[in-house]
Amino acid sequence: MVIDAHGHYTTVPPGLRVFRALQISQMGRPVKSAINISDDEIRASLEKGQIRLLDERGIDVMLELIYRVCKLYPSRFVGVCSLPQSPGVSPGESAQELERCVKEFGFVGCNLNPDPSGGYWTGPPLGDEWWYPLYDTLQALDVPAMIHASATCNPAFHTTGSHYLNTDATAFLQLMESRVFRDFPKLRIVMPHGGGNVPYQAARYRALAIMNKWEPFDDFVKRIYFDTTVYNQDAMGLLIKVVGVDNIIFASEMLGGVNTTDPVTGKSFDDNRRFIDAIDWLTDEDRQKIFEGNARKAYPRLAVLARG
Amino acid sequence: MVIDAHGHYTTVPPGLRVFRALQISQMGRPVKSAINISDDEIRASLEKGQIRLLDERGIDVMLELIYRVCKLYPSRFVGVCSLPQSPGVSPGESAQELERCVKEFGFVGCNLNPDPSGGYWTGPPLGDEWWYPLYDTLQALDVPAMIHASATCNPAFHTTGSHYLNTDATAFLQLMESRVFRDFPKLRIVMPHGGGNVPYQAARYRALAIMNKWEPFDDFVKRIYFDTTVYNQDAMGLLIKVVGVDNIIFASEMLGGVNTTDPVTGKSFDDNRRFIDAIDWLTDEDRQKIFEGNARKAYPRLAVLARG
Repeated sequence: MVIDAHGHYTTVPPGLRVFRALQISQMGRPVKSAINISDDEIRASLEKGQIRLLDERGIDVMLELIYRVCKLYPSRFVGVCSLPQSPGVSPGESAQELERCVKEFGFVGCNLNPDPSGGYWTGPPLGDEWWYPLYDTLQALDVPAMIHASATCNPAFHTTGSHYLNTDATAFLQLMESRVFRDFPKLRIVMPHGGGNVPYQAARYRALAIMNKWEPFDDFVKRIYFDTTVYNQDAMGLLIKVVGVDNIIFASEMLGGVNTTDPVTGKSFDDNRRFIDAIDWLTDEDRQKIFEGNARKAYPRLAVLARG
Repeated sequence: MVIDAHGHYTTVPPGLRVFRALQISQMGRPVKSAINISDDEIRASLEKGQIRLLDERGIDVMLELIYRVCKLYPSRFVGVCSLPQSPGVSPGESAQELERCVKEFGFVGCNLNPDPSGGYWTGPPLGDEWWYPLYDTLQALDVPAMIHASATCNPAFHTTGSHYLNTDATAFLQLMESRVFRDFPKLRIVMPHGGGNVPYQAARYRALAIMNKWEPFDDFVKRIYFDTTVYNQDAMGLLIKVVGVDNIIFASEMLGGVNTTDPVTGKSFDDNRRFIDAIDWLTDEDRQKIFEGNARKAYPRLAVLARG
């Protein structure tokens, strides 16, 4: 089985955009209202997009954000929730929504935005006890958090280019200089975009850990899972080499940041399974870990899926 | 000749720390005063540090920040100035200091901090016309700017770990989505730390350029010089492969971010010339470019140094 741990439901039907625009227009005085989208509209939005591509690329299951998608296609999409985070609001306030999504909807993990201010970084770093109530709930529910930024409001940062990648690298170091994994030994974190800069700058992190007497980099890096959303052969090889096969989870970020065709290869950038297939120093067992086994370790609630 | 384009005079005599502390205590009501440091103190601070290491590692000349150091050792250190940047103050205000350092002191370039707010990113991005008066002066004086952050005041970011590398990547994308190089075709920019994440995430930048109809990544990347301050073999190879030998400038960042010994190799992390020496697909001509030729192209005022 091939599990893709990082999907984006970006092909939403127009009804969702109407609902979001209404929400934003009511900011400060929100009114509850229904989303007017039929199941057929959801099916149409996926069957020409993500599902066609999953089939073409030999991917069985994708971790996704949306409950109704997951109900319509329970063998292809598994839910991962976002949290109602806001600047200045305690992360503990998100615990109830996390519990609802996991227990009522069968979601298997969540997205954690380390910068709810959207590029101004006004909140405490991930090592601060500010975050501990959420870590408590994650550990109690036995679900992981993917550390992933949302949009940036700061014109200094391009959202999917700078802000996403900076956030990965920043969060990695915030955790590295913290005692989070000592205080929450069962907490599981997934880092997207191949860790931002972590594999490329590994020697710098290695040196900083020595200079600051943090846990050695090569031990610390094993406390985190890294997804494979990098899009060329050399980067994929470097990622797996630095992090090690036991901590790599296959993911494509489809349809997300790099939704276009590479003119050199004629293939879509996010058709990235081929880079893993092409690494000749990976064994069949390594590939099984990357494509399925590690995702099942990081997301134990994926046990609802039949093995294969 | 081997030129190192990124040095830090971090081993300053105690008299400088006294002067800086006094400056900070007088913030808002500054008083001009002299720095009380003898030439012998400067010599002592270097001869056991940077100069010993330059000799051990076969590096001839280092680009450095401090005028008196450069006067004492004119064949070993060449000055690069910092600028009096402050949040909200027009970069044009720095033009006079840049001109003074280049014309009076013989400095060959400057440091440009794209985030004078120190981790809050409150200023306009590098593509904004806010920066144009400084680009005008850089072009008129025919000197390059190295884009390099200073300390961060924001607890979200580790200074030499997250903030430096995020700044490199952020500045790269700010320039990529701008028209700066169309408006200033002779402007020369040097990106430190091997470009932060640029070589590792090259495919992402490549895709973003296509999706946003920016100049293709593989053309744009040739508009910028990248230094070699990455510290392992794989990262060095990836950097040179992605950027190309014509845009790589040797540098060690000594004594800076990674001033410690790698227990695996027994060598200092920033003893990084060996990684370039070890790449077997580089020709002698490639190495000459990386170690000397490209620095002379980016910093034409290095013509004061004898060739060799």
